[in-house]
Amino acid sequence: MAQAAPEETIDREQLRELGQQLRVDSVRAAAAAGSGHPTSSMSAADLMAVLFARYLRYDFSAPENKANDHLVFSKGHASPLLYSLYKMAGAIDEEELLSFREFGSRLQGHPTPEIPWVDVATGSLGQGLPISIGIALAGKRLEAADYRVWVLCGDSELAEGSMWEAFEHAGHAGLDNMVAIVDVNRLGQRGPTMHEWDTSSWAARVAACGWGVQEIDGHDFEAVDAAYAKAIAADRPAAIFARTKKGSGVAAVEDQPNQHGKPLADPDAAVEELGGVRSHRVEVQAPPEARPFEIEATPVERPAYEVGEKVATRGAYGDALTWLGSIDESVVALDGEVGNSTYAERFAAAHPDRFFEMYIAEQQMIAAGVGLQTRGWKPFASSFGAFLSRAYDFVRMAAVSDADLKLCGSHVGVSIGPDGPSQMALEDIASLRAVYGSVILYPSDANQAVELLDAMRRHRGISYMRTTREATPVIYGPEESFEIGGSHTVRTGDADDVTLIAAGITLHESLAAAEELAGRGIAARVIDLYSVKPVDADAILAAAAETKAIVTVEDHWAEGGIGETVAGVLAEAGASTPLVRLAVSGRPGSGPPEALLAAAGIDAEHIVAAAERAARRVGAP
Amino acid sequence: MAQAAPEETIDREQLRELGQQLRVDSVRAAAAAGSGHPTSSMSAADLMAVLFARYLRYDFSAPENKANDHLVFSKGHASPLLYSLYKMAGAIDEEELLSFREFGSRLQGHPTPEIPWVDVATGSLGQGLPISIGIALAGKRLEAADYRVWVLCGDSELAEGSMWEAFEHAGHAGLDNMVAIVDVNRLGQRGPTMHEWDTSSWAARVAACGWGVQEIDGHDFEAVDAAYAKAIAADRPAAIFARTKKGSGVAAVEDQPNQHGKPLADPDAAVEELGGVRSHRVEVQAPPEARPFEIEATPVERPAYEVGEKVATRGAYGDALTWLGSIDESVVALDGEVGNSTYAERFAAAHPDRFFEMYIAEQQMIAAGVGLQTRGWKPFASSFGAFLSRAYDFVRMAAVSDADLKLCGSHVGVSIGPDGPSQMALEDIASLRAVYGSVILYPSDANQAVELLDAMRRHRGISYMRTTREATPVIYGPEESFEIGGSHTVRTGDADDVTLIAAGITLHESLAAAEELAGRGIAARVIDLYSVKPVDADAILAAAAETKAIVTVEDHWAEGGIGETVAGVLAEAGASTPLVRLAVSGRPGSGPPEALLAAAGIDAEHIVAAAERAARRVGAP
Repeated sequence: MAQAAPEETIDREQLRELGQQLRVDSVRAAAAAGSGHPTSSMSAADLMAVLFARYLRYDFSAPENKANDHLVFSKGHASPLLYSLYKMAGAIDEEELLSFREFGSRLQGHPTPEIPWVDVATGSLGQGLPISIGIALAGKRLEAADYRVWVLCGDSELAEGSMWEAFEHAGHAGLDNMVAIVDVNRLGQRGPTMHEWDTSSWAARVAACGWGVQEIDGHDFEAVDAAYAKAIAADRPAAIFARTKKGSGVAAVEDQPNQHGKPLADPDAAVEELGGVRSHRVEVQAPPEARPFEIEATPVERPAYEVGEKVATRGAYGDALTWLGSIDESVVALDGEVGNSTYAERFAAAHPDRFFEMYIAEQQMIAAGVGLQTRGWKPFASSFGAFLSRAYDFVRMAAVSDADLKLCGSHVGVSIGPDGPSQMALEDIASLRAVYGSVILYPSDANQAVELLDAMRRHRGISYMRTTREATPVIYGPEESFEIGGSHTVRTGDADDVTLIAAGITLHESLAAAEELAGRGIAARVIDLYSVKPVDADAILAAAAETKAIVTVEDHWAEGGIGETVAGVLAEAGASTPLVRLAVSGRPGSGPPEALLAAAGIDAEHIVAAAERAARRVGAP
Repeated sequence: MAQAAPEETIDREQLRELGQQLRVDSVRAAAAAGSGHPTSSMSAADLMAVLFARYLRYDFSAPENKANDHLVFSKGHASPLLYSLYKMAGAIDEEELLSFREFGSRLQGHPTPEIPWVDVATGSLGQGLPISIGIALAGKRLEAADYRVWVLCGDSELAEGSMWEAFEHAGHAGLDNMVAIVDVNRLGQRGPTMHEWDTSSWAARVAACGWGVQEIDGHDFEAVDAAYAKAIAADRPAAIFARTKKGSGVAAVEDQPNQHGKPLADPDAAVEELGGVRSHRVEVQAPPEARPFEIEATPVERPAYEVGEKVATRGAYGDALTWLGSIDESVVALDGEVGNSTYAERFAAAHPDRFFEMYIAEQQMIAAGVGLQTRGWKPFASSFGAFLSRAYDFVRMAAVSDADLKLCGSHVGVSIGPDGPSQMALEDIASLRAVYGSVILYPSDANQAVELLDAMRRHRGISYMRTTREATPVIYGPEESFEIGGSHTVRTGDADDVTLIAAGITLHESLAAAEELAGRGIAARVIDLYSVKPVDADAILAAAAETKAIVTVEDHWAEGGIGETVAGVLAEAGASTPLVRLAVSGRPGSGPPEALLAAAGIDAEHIVAAAERAARRVGAP
């Protein structure tokens, strides 16, 4: 069937056929898998039938075509419906549809970008809409593009605050290229939602966010068609609250409790009740020609700092990002309303068109970054490191999406001082190391931060830079090079007794400690472990072989940080060099940075004591 | 000054004096500290002056009095105002006020419960309101109490989705004991908020959530007083949007940009402009008598499973929690709309009065738990382990609050099978280990899960239990005991060649591997490391001393999990026993659990291969 232009009268029978086919195929896919969410697919079948037959503009043979519309299933568990749509559009065949959830099949339980028509992984509810904001921002603010972003949302996920960050941001940014279709099927996993079919509360809230809002019957084809027509004609983002029945079309499950997330008990009977297997094919409308666009980049010099100067690495982040924005037009920056602390404001001043103020909504910030990178932009998102923890699930899912996402967390550790523990990132290394494929960088001086930020720009994947609030001495010349996976031995001699391994502010404490140790006749090697993941195992093992003890010191909890990273390297190699791990001990309070570093047991004095004990225990002078 | 009854005519001059005193003291505290947020305090000074003088019911000499109202500063950075209020109420003196942010002072940069009148730490924006929902739920649903929960919110933090989870939940639960006072001072950290003084969008949204809403001038004492009177008389939660001026009262900073989070440039001039230092004292109204309440607990038998039976530990969680609810009336349960997966539904069925359905809003769920525990309840909050990552910042802050919070994450690891990576917790151990003072338990069978859950109930602090989706054999009798910090050697002989350390589903893979290894002439010790934090270092070091190699295996990423925990123990002891760490390698997809365990390299076959290689390398037969 050819896709009809929206202005034509709709063919209700044709659409009904398509909707039934999508139901049948959803039932069959789940039956073949022995698991999955057919009922959550059936409720939205009619909504998606109309979208594919009459509105979506997408060339399934060319998913890389930048003019294609985007379709995001925020309710990712409706994957049987999505895959049935792909079959209906001729993108996959019957056999592949029935490989749903098989080991090795790209048709996983929840969609991932392993499928070429999927932009981002969904399945953690409340993420698809906020990510779509990023996709829409790219079209609206950067590319002056005509594509539309269609998002199928569930009603259950409207309980997630991240959805409301998205509604707020889209309204504020005037994203008239967005259509959110909410499949209000009344039933969550374990029972009714808070509002069931009363869409009035949601509609009022979304309208108050600046969206055009419609409330319709999601099984009434005329209503659905009219709603889409109105949505794309509007001068604001459009939300359609469509009342539907979960499991619609099959009496045994339609609007029934306890039918979430499992195959139908009698799929054959269900298929028969739905009118049997069909193989209608929809020719989805082709996208219009992509429009060229230009980014003008103000030239900015590469920052360079003089050795000995005191510069906070957060400041270097701001400077370096500004420079990178000038040499790479795909670099964009997002910040969580703390740009005068992270220094993302410097980028904003130089490249205002590519800066996104995300306000205090870290989930939306990360989500927008994930959305932007689907269009080839290189997003750098910054906030206090502590507050990035707010978006941890979004970073986790970004890894499932294989996203190219660069993060910067400032104000890490107790060394921020008087603001106190709520503002101190002390778990960021641990949590972000445990993100699949992530890179963790922790520069110890400003020139190094510049070099590492450029490495992040060139690296495709999830990377995180940890920056320090306090100004610390520049110790490297601007010509020195640093790379992901590297380390730098800052101090060494002919016969080192002990090795100090640190990064960031504790590297400076370690250098001071090494000086003091030298006075006591103990030669300390000092390694700047600026790349915490991947880690330079060779440098660690060389230190284990060549010195008698290793002391790690970090402005972070002991768990999952630098010390444990080093321990892993040593233990796997069967190295018997004793390791002493200094990390933040005890719950910190407010106070001057020096007092807090001392109280945490990670200042030069504590390093000296630990290194001396360790060295003497194993026979140093 | 004595607190006046609300019905009396207000004394505007008295209130003005109090407001000015609060401004003066906020300015002085920040000046003494050399940092802090005086301007964010000054905007809300009049709002709080009226509250303390006329509405709050609180005995500052008896913060443990359960009839006291609660006051939560969701905008925790307005701590100078809070501490100035304490001084005005006679709770602290001048000297202590001026110790603000000093090392060792309990008056930290952001409030924490080190101060007896502070329920919970704030300072990560968007948390105070959702936590207050938990405090209000306790009063409304459990205690039939008369206390009110007053929450001072900032306008910037309304961008956080968690605030909207809170507005939604309070409306749904009909929490008419809540008053949210939003200090709309128009300016965030780096500039104007999205809505500045136009409160209409927020008001419409909050009204649509079922709250009574008022929009007022926050410096008009009559308006503030009338708003509070109306708020406490209402039959629904009340929100007051108060337009204020940041830095109000001092021309140099009033409604000026770039005045966030720093002391005033000329504090003496500011104090003079505000009319000088005052020392008014307000006698805050005493709370009414606390009302007794009763919890009826349905008797439930302690669950016990037969050895050899196959039971999922998530099922045991549901059973055990139900039992604990019957023996301890302070046990309450919360779940994120997945109670039929986590099996929290079993508790809900037995103890409906103490079960809280939190819908798909994990931040609100954790926040409500934190709120409930301020009243002495023992909250157990459950969801898929993967989705607890959504609330990571709330758990982080719960540790700053020294909260008694019990978490359960189900569906961990690749062994969940076909649902795919979005649903798999693979970073939960790493992230939650890095929470200050946390306990991490990972039961390997159902009877152990029961015992450990009871240990969690008795433990005060943040604890996390990781449960498995799949049914696994019961290997321990119901009479065996397990404790926080313990481990259990499941298999050992006279001369073990190698030690396998695992927990949860990989313990069963390890037992199968040990059997296979025995057939190959390699004796394997198997340690069930069910307490990942604190960890049983003695058992690990004994294994290191007594066997030739250690293999750890876990259904989790390598970073920050069991293997790294063991590595830390070995490296700190300088043990040279080689360690092989098996953890999930590669990005998993969908498939049967066995296929995914094999693909991840953590099934029995991979354990056999790793153990055999390790044992032979070091000279086993």
